[in-house]
Amino acid sequence: MSFRFQIEARDGKARAGRLFTPHGVVQTPVFMPVGTLATVKGVPQDTLEELGVEILLNNTYHLYLRPGVETVRALGGVQRFMAWDHPILTDSGGFQVFSLSELRKVTEEGVAFRSHLDGSSHMFTPESAIAAQIGLGADIIMAFDECTEHPAERARARESMEMTLRWLKRSKDYFEAHKHEVPWYNGGRKADPSIRSSAADDLSRDDKSKEFYGTAEAVPLQNNDSDAGLKASSTQIAGVEPGQTQALFGIVQGGMYPDLRRESAQRTVEIDLPGYAIGGLSVGEPRPMTYEMVDAAMPYLPENKPRYLMGVGTPEEIVHYVAQGVDMMDCVLPTRAARHGLLFTSEGKLTIKNARFARDEGPIDPKCHCKVCGRYSRAYLRHLYASNELLARVLNTVHNLAYYLDTMRRVRQAILLGEFATFLSGVRPAHLSAP
Amino acid sequence: MSFRFQIEARDGKARAGRLFTPHGVVQTPVFMPVGTLATVKGVPQDTLEELGVEILLNNTYHLYLRPGVETVRALGGVQRFMAWDHPILTDSGGFQVFSLSELRKVTEEGVAFRSHLDGSSHMFTPESAIAAQIGLGADIIMAFDECTEHPAERARARESMEMTLRWLKRSKDYFEAHKHEVPWYNGGRKADPSIRSSAADDLSRDDKSKEFYGTAEAVPLQNNDSDAGLKASSTQIAGVEPGQTQALFGIVQGGMYPDLRRESAQRTVEIDLPGYAIGGLSVGEPRPMTYEMVDAAMPYLPENKPRYLMGVGTPEEIVHYVAQGVDMMDCVLPTRAARHGLLFTSEGKLTIKNARFARDEGPIDPKCHCKVCGRYSRAYLRHLYASNELLARVLNTVHNLAYYLDTMRRVRQAILLGEFATFLSGVRPAHLSAP
Repeated sequence: MSFRFQIEARDGKARAGRLFTPHGVVQTPVFMPVGTLATVKGVPQDTLEELGVEILLNNTYHLYLRPGVETVRALGGVQRFMAWDHPILTDSGGFQVFSLSELRKVTEEGVAFRSHLDGSSHMFTPESAIAAQIGLGADIIMAFDECTEHPAERARARESMEMTLRWLKRSKDYFEAHKHEVPWYNGGRKADPSIRSSAADDLSRDDKSKEFYGTAEAVPLQNNDSDAGLKASSTQIAGVEPGQTQALFGIVQGGMYPDLRRESAQRTVEIDLPGYAIGGLSVGEPRPMTYEMVDAAMPYLPENKPRYLMGVGTPEEIVHYVAQGVDMMDCVLPTRAARHGLLFTSEGKLTIKNARFARDEGPIDPKCHCKVCGRYSRAYLRHLYASNELLARVLNTVHNLAYYLDTMRRVRQAILLGEFATFLSGVRPAHLSAP
Repeated sequence: MSFRFQIEARDGKARAGRLFTPHGVVQTPVFMPVGTLATVKGVPQDTLEELGVEILLNNTYHLYLRPGVETVRALGGVQRFMAWDHPILTDSGGFQVFSLSELRKVTEEGVAFRSHLDGSSHMFTPESAIAAQIGLGADIIMAFDECTEHPAERARARESMEMTLRWLKRSKDYFEAHKHEVPWYNGGRKADPSIRSSAADDLSRDDKSKEFYGTAEAVPLQNNDSDAGLKASSTQIAGVEPGQTQALFGIVQGGMYPDLRRESAQRTVEIDLPGYAIGGLSVGEPRPMTYEMVDAAMPYLPENKPRYLMGVGTPEEIVHYVAQGVDMMDCVLPTRAARHGLLFTSEGKLTIKNARFARDEGPIDPKCHCKVCGRYSRAYLRHLYASNELLARVLNTVHNLAYYLDTMRRVRQAILLGEFATFLSGVRPAHLSAP
C-alpha cells in the first residue's frame, strides 16, 4: 500500500496520527516547511533532519520552470534530486499561476500563463499539472484546482467551485492512467532515460524549461563511474518499495460561503482519494472567517483520512487549526519572516534588527532548545542581520523552523496525553510582541 | 605565556608546527578562512568546526564600522561575540582602507578615510588601529602598515616601506602600553561596562559606529537571567587563562624590489615580535614575482617564529608558499569563488552553472570527503546556483573550504613524513580546469 493514515489518539476534534508514504513516515499533526525550489532557503538538508523535519513542500510551478520536470524525472524524482530521502508533497502549481504570473487566462481547459522569470508562455491543465507532479515524484500530490480570488461574489465562488470539481475529476482520471510513471515506481533505481513516459510527452508541448538556461540541452543521464558518485546516488534512496505510487489529494473550495464550503466538501469526497485539503483560505480574509470556513467544511471530510489546510499559519493559529481537526499545514511564514529578521519566540514576535538587541547576550528565546539559541546571542544575530549577512538568513530560519516544529511536537504530545484543551488555553494571542 | 610557536618537523624549507594562542592551538601550515564581519559568509560556526577550521581571520575595518569596536568589547571580544571559542586573527584595517574607501588621505599620522557604507569620516592611525584590535580581542593582531600600491617606483616603494617601519614602532609602543585592556585579560569573564578603557577613549574621537544604526545607543551590557542565556554566554569560553594578551605581528613591505624586501625584513625583525608577515603581495603582480619577493624576504625572518603570507592564494599556490617556508596564509578566494559558483576540485576548477552539469549525478569532486560531496549531486548544486538560491552559496563554500583545508592537512602530513617534495611535484598547475 502506497499511502496510509493511522490515527493514534483523539482529543476533542484534534487528532494525533501518522502518514505512511513511500519515502517514510510523517507524524501528525504536522507543519510542512516550504522548500519552493527543492531547497528550504539557506538550510542544508542535514540541518532539516536535525530539526526533525519529516516532510517538505515543493512547488510544482517553480520546479517546472527550473530545473524542469524532465531533469528531475531523469534524476529519479525530487527526493533523490535534492538528496532528501524523506516524504515530499507538491502543490499543483495552480496557486502560483494565479499569484505570480502577470498575464494569465483561465478557460475550461486550464490556465495559460507567462513565466515570471522570462515571460515565456505555458499552459497548466489538470492533466499537465498532474503529469508534472508525477514526473517530479513527490509522495503526496495535489489536484489542480482554481484558488478562488478574494473577495468573490457568491455566484463567482460557486462557478469557481464547480470548475474545481470538474478539474478534480480530470486530475484523478489522468492520475489513475499515469501514476505508474512516477520515477521511483521500480523501487528507486535510476530512471532509464531511453524510456520517455507518455506523461513527459504530455508536458513537452508546454515545457519550455529546456530553453530556460539558454544552452541547456536535454542531456541524457550521465553515469558517474566513481565510487563517490555511486555513493552519492545510491545512499540517497534507502529503498522505496517497488510498485508504489503517489497519493493524490483533492481540494475543497467555496470562497467565503459556508454553504458552498459544505457542498464543495461533500462533492469532493464523493471522489475517493486518500486525503483532502481545504484551499482558498488565508487569502486576505479576516481570521475569524478562516476559522468559520474550516468549521463549515470539516464535518464533511472523512474522519479516517488526513485533512490538509493549505497555506497557514502563524504559530498560534496552527494550534487552533489542529483543534478544528486539521492534520497537515504548510506556510512560508516561518522561513520568509526569518529572512526578514522577524523571529517567533515563546515570548512573542521579535524584530532582530531592533537597536535594543545590539548588546543583548541572551539567546533569541530562553526557552528554545534549537542550536541557534544554544550558541548565538541576540547581539550577534542582530549584527548579522543589520550587515545583510547570509548567515543571518540561515540562522534565523533554523530558529523559526525549530519554533514551529517544537510547537507541533508539543501539540501532538498534548493530544496523546488527552491534555490538548489545556495546551490550547495557554496559547498566547497572536498579536503580542516579545518584551 | 600568551603565544608560542613550536616546530614539529622540517622538510626542506617547509615546516609543520603549532601555534599556541589564548583561545586554542592551530596546526601549521594553516590556511585561515576569511570571516570578514565575524562570519564566514553563510557557514555556521558548527559547520566550520566540522570542517576542522582552527583559526579565522576577521577584518578590523569592517568590524570597526559594524557593529563597532565598543559593542564587541562589551560583549567580551570577538570570539565570544561570534560564538567561536577558538583562535582568531585580525588584520589592521590598513588594506581595506586602501582598497575599499573612495576618499583617503595618507599622512605621517595615519589614514583619513570615508566609510564605504555611509561616507562618514574616520581616521586610522597605528595607535587607533591597535586600539581597535585590542578592543576586538583577536588572539593575533597585525601592525598598522601601508600596503604599497602596485606598480610603484623604487623611490615610492622605499618611502612606503620606511613609513611602515615607523608605523610598526608606533604600533608596538601602543600595544605594549595597552595590551592588558584586551576584553579577556581577566580570563574570559564579562567585561565590566563601567570601566571604559583608555583604548576606548582613543577610539571614541573617531568611532562613529554608534551612529551607524541611527538609533543605536551605547547600551550597557544586559544581564540575561535565564539559564539558557547564561548557558549561551558561559559555554562559549572554555576558559582563557587570566593574564594573557594578544600576539602582535609585524609586516614586511618593499614593493617588488628584492633588495627593499630584504632590508624591510631585516629592519622589521629588529623589533622583537612573536611573528612576522609578508604583506603587499598578490596585488596584481605576475606570480613569479610574488615567489621572488617571498624568497627575498624569507631568509631574514626568524626561523623559530611563524611566517604569515597575507592574502594568498590558489589551492596550488598555497602549497608552493609552504615550500618557501610560509606557515600561515589567508585569502577570500575559496569563499568568494564559491559564492560565484567556482569550485575547486582534485581535477581542477569547475564552474557549476555550466549546462553540462544539469543532469550530472556525481559529486563535485569524486575524491572529496566533505559533507557536500557526500550528499549532493552536481545537478542539484547547479540548479541551486542557477536559481540564485542561498543554499548554493552555503554548500559551495563548505566544499571549497573543505578542499583548501584538506590540501593543508595533506601538506602538513607530507612534511611530518618527510615526503613534501613528492607531494609538491604532484600539485597540478593552477590554470587547468576540471574535465
